[in-house]
Amino acid sequence: MDNLRERALKFHKDNEGKIALHCKVPVKNKEDLTMAYTPGVAEPCLEINKNYETIYDYTSKGNWVAVVTNGTAVLGLGDIGAGAGLPVMEGKAVLFKAFAGVDAFPICIETNKVNKIVETVKLMESSFGGINLEDIKAPECFEIEAKLKAISSIPIFHDDQHGTAVVSAACLINALKLTNKKFEDLKVVINGSGAAGIAITKLLLKIGTKNVILCDTKGAIYKGRTVGMNEYKDEIAQMTNPNLEQGDLADVIKGADVFLGVSAANCVTQEMVKSMNKDAIIMAMANPNPEILPNLAVEAGARVVCTGRSDFPNQVNNVLAFPGIFRGALDVRASEINDEMKIAAAYAIAELVSEEELKEDFVIPNAFDLRIAPKVAYYVAKAAIETGVARRADVTPEMVEKHTKELLGL
Amino acid sequence: MDNLRERALKFHKDNEGKIALHCKVPVKNKEDLTMAYTPGVAEPCLEINKNYETIYDYTSKGNWVAVVTNGTAVLGLGDIGAGAGLPVMEGKAVLFKAFAGVDAFPICIETNKVNKIVETVKLMESSFGGINLEDIKAPECFEIEAKLKAISSIPIFHDDQHGTAVVSAACLINALKLTNKKFEDLKVVINGSGAAGIAITKLLLKIGTKNVILCDTKGAIYKGRTVGMNEYKDEIAQMTNPNLEQGDLADVIKGADVFLGVSAANCVTQEMVKSMNKDAIIMAMANPNPEILPNLAVEAGARVVCTGRSDFPNQVNNVLAFPGIFRGALDVRASEINDEMKIAAAYAIAELVSEEELKEDFVIPNAFDLRIAPKVAYYVAKAAIETGVARRADVTPEMVEKHTKELLGL
Repeated sequence: MDNLRERALKFHKDNEGKIALHCKVPVKNKEDLTMAYTPGVAEPCLEINKNYETIYDYTSKGNWVAVVTNGTAVLGLGDIGAGAGLPVMEGKAVLFKAFAGVDAFPICIETNKVNKIVETVKLMESSFGGINLEDIKAPECFEIEAKLKAISSIPIFHDDQHGTAVVSAACLINALKLTNKKFEDLKVVINGSGAAGIAITKLLLKIGTKNVILCDTKGAIYKGRTVGMNEYKDEIAQMTNPNLEQGDLADVIKGADVFLGVSAANCVTQEMVKSMNKDAIIMAMANPNPEILPNLAVEAGARVVCTGRSDFPNQVNNVLAFPGIFRGALDVRASEINDEMKIAAAYAIAELVSEEELKEDFVIPNAFDLRIAPKVAYYVAKAAIETGVARRADVTPEMVEKHTKELLGL
Repeated sequence: MDNLRERALKFHKDNEGKIALHCKVPVKNKEDLTMAYTPGVAEPCLEINKNYETIYDYTSKGNWVAVVTNGTAVLGLGDIGAGAGLPVMEGKAVLFKAFAGVDAFPICIETNKVNKIVETVKLMESSFGGINLEDIKAPECFEIEAKLKAISSIPIFHDDQHGTAVVSAACLINALKLTNKKFEDLKVVINGSGAAGIAITKLLLKIGTKNVILCDTKGAIYKGRTVGMNEYKDEIAQMTNPNLEQGDLADVIKGADVFLGVSAANCVTQEMVKSMNKDAIIMAMANPNPEILPNLAVEAGARVVCTGRSDFPNQVNNVLAFPGIFRGALDVRASEINDEMKIAAAYAIAELVSEEELKEDFVIPNAFDLRIAPKVAYYVAKAAIETGVARRADVTPEMVEKHTKELLGL
């Protein structure tokens, strides 16, 4: 790891960070200046003043996403401060651009107060076509997202929640094909009640799963539990665990078809895997050390194992989802990114693994598969149109797919 | 003008705005991802968390300037709203990049409340190396700037004030060479008590002028005036008009060496110019129609005439100043942009007109003279170092000049 440390620091220092401005227009002479600046620039200003929606025609707003953090849950490093999160936010901006031609800008907000963050983002909404919340700790992230969604006319998307949920769902869609199981028949146990755990729970319910049990450090969450609850866990308790199972992870994992961990290294034993249903699916996404190592899980009888790591098969990587999701949402000028759009993204990602390719150690496409963003964008745009949140009537999913390919030089 | 209108709208629409993201690093394979994003990116995060100042080493913060507006005084269009100001802010970003390699990002803040703007900008300070306030109306702009300067560790610069003041001063420095006059002997009458008028007044006092009279719509401002005053005009009244001259512009312009207008079209008559001192200097900067047309002013006896327009000689154009000023400030990591740095910028700009070139219709260099930003950056950096506001001890003015030239491909 010391070598990685040195290389990573040198990489960042040599490049003086990772992002810069690109001007889409030249400024070489007076005529250029007349158009890009005064007096020409007054004309689009006046148009936008007359009809705000033309801001999408005359400015770059529609392609810019703010990557917003307060630095309270950066990677696995915890609350390191908004400024210390900037390398991650710049990295995210680079991924947005590289994978889907989305222009993204890091906004590091130095406060832990929910209302201050909401207000700050809302006040600068005119500069952006969408907001990607990033590395904000739970439960504040839920409140920030909900409040922003209620007052914003642009998509608000907390990637740690929904990006992870979408890619997890994509993995499961394909793993279920291998094991001939259906979402509605599954028993799913999720360990970790932070941003990702709660979002995955909700998306799996939405996608048709009937029996989901979410565990935190106090064990299974169930209706009536009183210890270590908060309003978000209370809500989850109402929607999940229909058999009111109690006990710790080792108790409730018995008979489960799927274990999904967004929790801590090595918290799943081979005994626990052995206690699961036949053809168990293990998604051990703790980083850098998973809940159980893939070889141990397979040895204990697991059929499919996914992790968050690139050096094992089946990497659950958010970059499969968020660039294409925003691409689709921006291109149809969606007012939000709703559950239907997320589910569409999950199925789009899953579909990129063909019947012939699909096997235990290949349930999810490679992050560098360039077909991903165009396909995700297509289906997300389609879902946005079908659910009535697309504000452009003149853009079809086909146009979105073509645009995405063009942006990627395909 | 109709043709300009159509061309400008088409220009903005065809390009879908003017700015995009540029990634300084590639993301083509797993190794790239390991460096630019996880797991490598954790290393600079940890370094910044340990020592905040290393944020300048490992991120792009140090080269990004926020162009911040609330849209209350956009060009000459008035309060059109922050979003409607976005084309100007994008244009400004383009100029920052084109003229000095500064990466700039438009932040449109939809509020007129001083404290909200101050708080919003302060909260996102980690993302930026400097703040350029733009098109915010007076008197709020003064309060916003003063409050931000008091709490920020990065330069805060309201270009409508200080950019205009610096370039006006540069013009005057050269015009005085032609007329063999000195700042300390001048009578200067300034018409217009908004952001630019007040800032020009203060800079001319700082530069050595003893007799400056600022006029507003109620006439000359003097100590003891009670009508139409505010705290900023009260402050100005204490510093200016030593002879307590009263009356309207036509009264106080008598015997003046310099008229400087940041006011309204055609408010200066030939009679008024005739009443001025010998070798009168007229800076008629109202846009698009100056306080008096250059040919009329010359006919009435003016020696040097400057305007804000590119189709007349001697254009007072802020683009001569702000790119190089920020370049110099950023490169030495200045904590502020102080008066000494502004005055240094004015003399740097003035010096670019050689003794041989200097004449009545050429007192200020052309905006596209590529020597400007490197020279301004050099002198601004030097002044920052000399006044103790440069936070980098390892960067010399020579290095700043070289860096600026490199960024411009010179």
